[in-house]
Amino acid sequence: MPVSTNTRELFAKRLRQIRLSKGLSQEALADLAGLHRTYVGSVERGERNISIDNMERLAKALEVDTFELLREQRHEFPPRQEDT
Amino acid sequence: MPVSTNTRELFAKRLRQIRLSKGLSQEALADLAGLHRTYVGSVERGERNISIDNMERLAKALEVDTFELLREQRHEFPPRQEDT
Repeated sequence: MPVSTNTRELFAKRLRQIRLSKGLSQEALADLAGLHRTYVGSVERGERNISIDNMERLAKALEVDTFELLREQRHEFPPRQEDT
Repeated sequence: MPVSTNTRELFAKRLRQIRLSKGLSQEALADLAGLHRTYVGSVERGERNISIDNMERLAKALEVDTFELLREQRHEFPPRQEDT
């Protein structure tokens, strides 16, 4: 069964996570995506019923596939165990 | 790098694939999701800039996570090898 998390909130959370992981401000991301900074801020607060076309613009600006913005973060890259 | 497929077209394709895999008509899916049949048809033709809230309604009706509607189908369940 799908998780019960609201999709809009999940998108907001993942957008912020991935944006920060790329070292981008909301303004820098907005510029890259051709969107307004205040719009990106409201999306990150889950206030906007964002369209699929704008989701794609944000994903392209972040250089990720769009579905990554709707998938819970998993521990795909655990801390490396050093061979000592 | 992300695939170059247009996200809207990918969503349309995946929606149709998953709907058919569940044995649902467009009308049955529309009823389950609380949307209009003609709207679902136009989404499956990639004509609509669907919103994240409606993506969620369709995903819930199909009992999948929303991101599955934006991810290329992979061969996650290959034919089983019988031990003979």
